[in-house]
Amino acid sequence: MTSNQRLRRAIMDPKFTRFITTLIIINAILIGLETFPSIYEPYHMVFTIIDFVILGIFTLEVILKIIVHKTSYFHNNWNIFDFVIVAGSIILYSTPYVSVLRIFRVLRIFRTITTVPTLRRIVSALFMAIPTISSVLLIMTIIFYVYAILGTSFYGDIAPEYFGNIYLSLITLFQIFTLESWASGIFRPVFAEATWSWLYFISFIVIATFIMINLIVGEIVNNAQKISDEIDEDTDEIKEDTSEIHELRKEIREIKQMLQEKNS
Amino acid sequence: MTSNQRLRRAIMDPKFTRFITTLIIINAILIGLETFPSIYEPYHMVFTIIDFVILGIFTLEVILKIIVHKTSYFHNNWNIFDFVIVAGSIILYSTPYVSVLRIFRVLRIFRTITTVPTLRRIVSALFMAIPTISSVLLIMTIIFYVYAILGTSFYGDIAPEYFGNIYLSLITLFQIFTLESWASGIFRPVFAEATWSWLYFISFIVIATFIMINLIVGEIVNNAQKISDEIDEDTDEIKEDTSEIHELRKEIREIKQMLQEKNS
Amino acid sequence: MTSNQRLRRAIMDPKFTRFITTLIIINAILIGLETFPSIYEPYHMVFTIIDFVILGIFTLEVILKIIVHKTSYFHNNWNIFDFVIVAGSIILYSTPYVSVLRIFRVLRIFRTITTVPTLRRIVSALFMAIPTISSVLLIMTIIFYVYAILGTSFYGDIAPEYFGNIYLSLITLFQIFTLESWASGIFRPVFAEATWSWLYFISFIVIATFIMINLIVGEIVNNAQKISDEIDEDTDEIKEDTSEIHELRKEIREIKQMLQEKNS
Amino acid sequence: MTSNQRLRRAIMDPKFTRFITTLIIINAILIGLETFPSIYEPYHMVFTIIDFVILGIFTLEVILKIIVHKTSYFHNNWNIFDFVIVAGSIILYSTPYVSVLRIFRVLRIFRTITTVPTLRRIVSALFMAIPTISSVLLIMTIIFYVYAILGTSFYGDIAPEYFGNIYLSLITLFQIFTLESWASGIFRPVFAEATWSWLYFISFIVIATFIMINLIVGEIVNNAQKISDEIDEDTDEIKEDTSEIHELRKEIREIKQMLQEKNS
Repeated sequence: MTSNQRLRRAIMDPKFTRFITTLIIINAILIGLETFPSIYEPYHMVFTIIDFVILGIFTLEVILKIIVHKTSYFHNNWNIFDFVIVAGSIILYSTPYVSVLRIFRVLRIFRTITTVPTLRRIVSALFMAIPTISSVLLIMTIIFYVYAILGTSFYGDIAPEYFGNIYLSLITLFQIFTLESWASGIFRPVFAEATWSWLYFISFIVIATFIMINLIVGEIVNNAQKISDEIDEDTDEIKEDTSEIHELRKEIREIKQMLQEKNS
Repeated sequence: MTSNQRLRRAIMDPKFTRFITTLIIINAILIGLETFPSIYEPYHMVFTIIDFVILGIFTLEVILKIIVHKTSYFHNNWNIFDFVIVAGSIILYSTPYVSVLRIFRVLRIFRTITTVPTLRRIVSALFMAIPTISSVLLIMTIIFYVYAILGTSFYGDIAPEYFGNIYLSLITLFQIFTLESWASGIFRPVFAEATWSWLYFISFIVIATFIMINLIVGEIVNNAQKISDEIDEDTDEIKEDTSEIHELRKEIREIKQMLQEKNS
Repeated sequence: MTSNQRLRRAIMDPKFTRFITTLIIINAILIGLETFPSIYEPYHMVFTIIDFVILGIFTLEVILKIIVHKTSYFHNNWNIFDFVIVAGSIILYSTPYVSVLRIFRVLRIFRTITTVPTLRRIVSALFMAIPTISSVLLIMTIIFYVYAILGTSFYGDIAPEYFGNIYLSLITLFQIFTLESWASGIFRPVFAEATWSWLYFISFIVIATFIMINLIVGEIVNNAQKISDEIDEDTDEIKEDTSEIHELRKEIREIKQMLQEKNS
Repeated sequence: MTSNQRLRRAIMDPKFTRFITTLIIINAILIGLETFPSIYEPYHMVFTIIDFVILGIFTLEVILKIIVHKTSYFHNNWNIFDFVIVAGSIILYSTPYVSVLRIFRVLRIFRTITTVPTLRRIVSALFMAIPTISSVLLIMTIIFYVYAILGTSFYGDIAPEYFGNIYLSLITLFQIFTLESWASGIFRPVFAEATWSWLYFISFIVIATFIMINLIVGEIVNNAQKISDEIDEDTDEIKEDTSEIHELRKEIREIKQMLQEKNS
């Protein structure tokens, strides 16, 4: 047994995975505690040391896995995620980009999903749903863009905080799409000055909601179609079988006739 | 090969479609940039010229397509949409209806849907969903109308900005239907003066939401029904086949009897 | 042909139904116009006369239908609806209960649903959905009642306008159920004084939404079950048929043996 | 018949169940009436006595059931619920924890669900839906936790009432998840000071809503899968049967050949 094989076995060991998962959870709790100044400030150094040690173990884990799996390590998206999180934490460690580092440290919590297979499967399923809805998203993008331009040029002067430029308009349209304060906060003040603005707001809500609902209905129906396709395959095979019954009957009739001829 | 055939081939060429799609996207980006005064004002002329050129190419495209397809061009709804957008832009070009022209120019962005088949299919599917829900929409219209009249005559004096006339009431009911600020903004102030108003608001929300949910459930079930109909057809054919098994058995029994008779 | 038969034929005539539907629509438009004082006041008398005439024709229609169908007229829920609307309008005609009469007059607009079969079918389908959800509604009632009592006794003093008594609490819970301003308007002010109130609000939202979603999922699944039951029946019949194939084979084997015996 | 058997029969009697249900409803109405000071204060003693008697009967009911069913009484979750409610009421009866006792008394209303089988079945079905969504809930928890930490460290100073600590951030994220005032109340004020905050808010809403919708779609599809599995089993059996048709035909051909050989 080469040292590489022994290493592979050690890394594959469920105990090792459990150890890493435990570390991730400890790490998550620590990051949570850090947000309370009364806990964080007196034990400042303890937090920094534990964090340093955990990052060291994570780095070692990534290095060992790369040694074992070589380039095939990067064929797995979960591994790439792990790698980016750890590498990012190291690169940013003593730079002044503290808030970016903080994000990397918090994102490490998502590594729980990487190490627990059930969660990994669910997240994979969620990502798998994206391509089927991507063309609907493209249409949504076009509609958002068109309405953002119209909103900016029509209501940019009336409500500059909502429609001052395309960037603000897109954010406002997202807010309207979630139906949050679309009337009380945005539409009513605009409506007081632009009589026809109801057409802009209501048409956007109706179109966007209609597409959204159809997207969901479509997803359900697509899945039902997939389920029924399995049954369809079965029935097709059965039909092929049963279609022979006719010929079977014909042949039996021939036999009967033969026998009758002989009998007569 | 006549010149018409050569023209048809040129227009059908995927390269030509790709060229037009690129133009539409450039056009879309330009219209977006125009909303930033800092970019638009110094390059005013450049924008106008590019827009003029693009409109010219679009016009040429429509003319060429009409020459090739003749009257059958207008049998396709997508072509009619293209035609209206281009014709409208030309007619309004040097008129004072600037804001209408602007809408036409922005609507040109929707031509991306016309030229990309995948998007076209999705939008067609969305339009196809409309007739099946049209009778439900009619009932919704009746309910909105009845509640608008009741709201106007009951709360027109209490909350004139919401229920001042049928037109305002309909807009308010749409807002209530989206559940946006229905209580905090509209119901609570009215409720302070009209004790029984909760019946008006809550009944409207319950009825409208109930119909909406049933509409969505109905759409899903309808699609499931369509899927199962395919299976049903198969099983019907199979049943027809298998129903012959009985007769097959009868015939075989006869044969057996014949043989037994002979044997005896 | 008796006069009763002639009457029945006249009433059943699609032309008659179309005439009544037209009257209902005219009536609906008039009631709408009445809400504009500028139109209503100068032509006060005209409106009153047309309304009187239309009510007269509706009354005649109901009387004729009762003559033709006799007591079986009241076995149809739509007829009962028509009767109540017309009878109510007559009884309240010159009473001081003007606002109740107004509701009856507006409800006449719903008679469009009574006369148009497609709409009637949809509304019937909606009513049919109620019994299947009635036991879920009962649970919702219990949950609303429990939370209303808890809300009244816990937050009645903190926010008397929302939780002052059970009646107000129930309305507030309905508002929270629709998620409208539940946090910004109701929860945050209460939370400022009652630290544990988040448990009350969030648990209510989670439970109520969870039941609501399960109700909708259940309705879809029930319908899918019904659809699949049709297929199930078919497959059961087919299975009965195909189960004979075994015995068929046995019999054929016997025949073969008989022939072999003879041949030998 | 032993006294235990007689007792069992008495407890199982539908009349006894109906009696208990009636008591629960009376109890529920009384608790409701207590929230009105004008009714409660003058009849203070009456309420206390009736409540005492009802609690006594409930206690007796629990004791009798334990005598009859012995330890198997506690194998039923509904019984445990009953026991905790009654025991809790007794233990807290004359303690100063009045508000906890009040909750116990109100929770007694949920005993209607325990005694009415239809309601019990629905609630059981609701509880059964929880394990299938538990892993999705775990992912939601991770996402909420990560966003709460990010929110606290980024916006804790800008909006301390919303993001002051993890506890407040989690409540705020729940509010954002329900889409209530997420923009008008929380996002817009933060956005005024933190330009990139739209990324935080919009990404959270998109991710959380996306997971939620997929959870619902998944629940529907799972149920559809279960339904189709029944059909699948049937078709599998049928396929097994019909696959014999081939061999049947082969045998018949052999018979035919035998006969032809003989005939020739």
